[in-house]
Amino acid sequence: MGMETLLSEGIKATPPSFVRSILKAASEPGVISFAGGLPNPVSFPQEELLASMERIVKTYGSTVFQYSITAGLPELRQYIADRYHRIFGLNLSIDNIIITTGSQQALDLIGKVLLDRGDGVIVEKPTYLAAIQAFSMQQPTFYLITLTEEGMNPEELENALKNPVKFIYAIPNFQNPTGLTYSAGNRERIYEILKKHEVFLIEDDPYGELRFEGERLPYIGAGKLPNSILLGTFSKTVTPGMRIGFLISENKELLKHIFVAKEASDLHTNIFAQYLIWDYLKNNDLDIHIAKITELYRKQAHAMMEAIDRYFPPTVKYTRPHGGMFLWVTLPEGVSTMSLFPKALEKGVAFVPGDPFYTGIRNTNTMRLNYTNADSETITEGIRRLGDLLKEL
Amino acid sequence: MGMETLLSEGIKATPPSFVRSILKAASEPGVISFAGGLPNPVSFPQEELLASMERIVKTYGSTVFQYSITAGLPELRQYIADRYHRIFGLNLSIDNIIITTGSQQALDLIGKVLLDRGDGVIVEKPTYLAAIQAFSMQQPTFYLITLTEEGMNPEELENALKNPVKFIYAIPNFQNPTGLTYSAGNRERIYEILKKHEVFLIEDDPYGELRFEGERLPYIGAGKLPNSILLGTFSKTVTPGMRIGFLISENKELLKHIFVAKEASDLHTNIFAQYLIWDYLKNNDLDIHIAKITELYRKQAHAMMEAIDRYFPPTVKYTRPHGGMFLWVTLPEGVSTMSLFPKALEKGVAFVPGDPFYTGIRNTNTMRLNYTNADSETITEGIRRLGDLLKEL
Repeated sequence: MGMETLLSEGIKATPPSFVRSILKAASEPGVISFAGGLPNPVSFPQEELLASMERIVKTYGSTVFQYSITAGLPELRQYIADRYHRIFGLNLSIDNIIITTGSQQALDLIGKVLLDRGDGVIVEKPTYLAAIQAFSMQQPTFYLITLTEEGMNPEELENALKNPVKFIYAIPNFQNPTGLTYSAGNRERIYEILKKHEVFLIEDDPYGELRFEGERLPYIGAGKLPNSILLGTFSKTVTPGMRIGFLISENKELLKHIFVAKEASDLHTNIFAQYLIWDYLKNNDLDIHIAKITELYRKQAHAMMEAIDRYFPPTVKYTRPHGGMFLWVTLPEGVSTMSLFPKALEKGVAFVPGDPFYTGIRNTNTMRLNYTNADSETITEGIRRLGDLLKEL
Repeated sequence: MGMETLLSEGIKATPPSFVRSILKAASEPGVISFAGGLPNPVSFPQEELLASMERIVKTYGSTVFQYSITAGLPELRQYIADRYHRIFGLNLSIDNIIITTGSQQALDLIGKVLLDRGDGVIVEKPTYLAAIQAFSMQQPTFYLITLTEEGMNPEELENALKNPVKFIYAIPNFQNPTGLTYSAGNRERIYEILKKHEVFLIEDDPYGELRFEGERLPYIGAGKLPNSILLGTFSKTVTPGMRIGFLISENKELLKHIFVAKEASDLHTNIFAQYLIWDYLKNNDLDIHIAKITELYRKQAHAMMEAIDRYFPPTVKYTRPHGGMFLWVTLPEGVSTMSLFPKALEKGVAFVPGDPFYTGIRNTNTMRLNYTNADSETITEGIRRLGDLLKEL
């Protein structure tokens, strides 16, 4: 007898986050880190947020410090409804929107509401590692669908849907970890496939606003499929530290259950933070602020791609993102990026090996590089160090 | 086919919160509500918190807006370790403490880490309804132990422990919903029973600081039982809106898994709010602040008890709390407080019927009354209205 017998099967099935476990090593002095997924702190509107804090305390007094309702601040939900109407033509009321404690909580709530042990979940191959974590708690069966420059492979998707699947989890814009974006044609094909099936489609879109090249594309299911769930966040556009995300759906029955799961999980999201973000959005132009961020990230992404062209051996392939925070590097077959990781640290550079972005696949030859949290000179130097290591292989 | 087939068994087993569902009716103009569990907003240190906001933005800059570590702000965890050492003699390091998004999240994490379907959970009869919610997600078997003026019935506890039980959930100080406090002798007996069993003891203590009568009592298991979990929060002493709670344990193996569950649930708790609470605590004397709150609540509790003595029929029994936020009323047998609820609303007064504080028991003759969120005159008037209704029975 011991701890093992007291632990749940769910937690035993849940991997710790590799990214968060290496953050300490990656933040040692002298190490240039492409491992995190941090927005550039110069993009946080600190002065404006401080002004909003003073304003909301003075205007709303104790209300911003008291317990609040589970679904989230109605004014903030109305802002989200209006914005998604203006940009995407979605017809939403505040009843279609629940504020979550970051997008991560939305993944947790979806797992709780939809998954029993063994239920099928379709994800991209590779996919966001913290989504694997959140869903693993419910011990589902994962079906991995190849992700290409076009998007999700439609044939593999149709095949996977022959299994008892509860939902498809997709990141169609500037995907984490690959930086890839689904094409308009691919979105259309996936929509045509899904409309014949009774499954949920989760479109997780934390990076969609961070487009620095090309035209915005329509969602796959949002506003069209009855079982569509759209996830958004202010983490990448305003501040991640406040943990304000949101879940949008037109399926009221689903939302009723998400609401109960949210109640049971943390009663409600920090109400001060909700007032703060809402007041900031009301008194500042988010689009102008986002334009500044994307201009910054465009430069940093280009610095990284130019450095890769210059310092990496020509056998190395990489994706060229049109937005977001990451690009994805594929080394020659047989090279394990996990084995490479400690050697890279010795050279003073950190990345995330591909392994944690897959379920059941190990010793991959892929890695994720983040370009948002360092200036162009630092990025160039970090890629040079990594290139030195790759040339030694 | 339909939504029903897509929903998890866990969410189907989870009741919505009755308290939160009646908050709207209870907050109609003209209704005096004893239904909520809200701290009195006059107790929020608004000016001091605003000063702390300005200070932390100026001192720590972008750090208070960026992503942060999962376990929580080290400085805040150190403050908690020091406070529990000073008051209770617990020997804690920051590694024994994880910051949670309110105490509610701690309940969710414990359920995730310890419970599989059918596992035994021992709770007080009655117990905190949102704990029932959080644990229900994992579909455990609940064992209900009678709660008396002394505490948990030891014989019933020993008997329930013959089943495969993962943990005991107890609120030893000014319990929600009853306002009862375990006696020193009862704590000792429960400790003696539990030290022979391999189970966790969760001591949920959101109200312990709010003592307005008598002497503070030692914990049952914290600092003594290896499988002890202690939960605390700043919701009742500083501000609930910021959602800052904490989980304390000396079991490092457990904490490792709580950490992974926390990562998967929301990455980390709002870091701005953690800096805010920490800065407030560093620059203000919490004990002096708490003394003001308890003085306020003592008056309000006494106003309620005096009004009950005056306006309720003598067949009605109630608990006399030494602290906390609630008292518990027992009506003559056969009276259903659930049927009484709409009639009370018509008379302009709201309470929480006893039913949601039990699992599997309905039409109880009990009700919870909150006395912290109204002044003495309002309390007296509300009790008078409720007394009128009770006399009609």
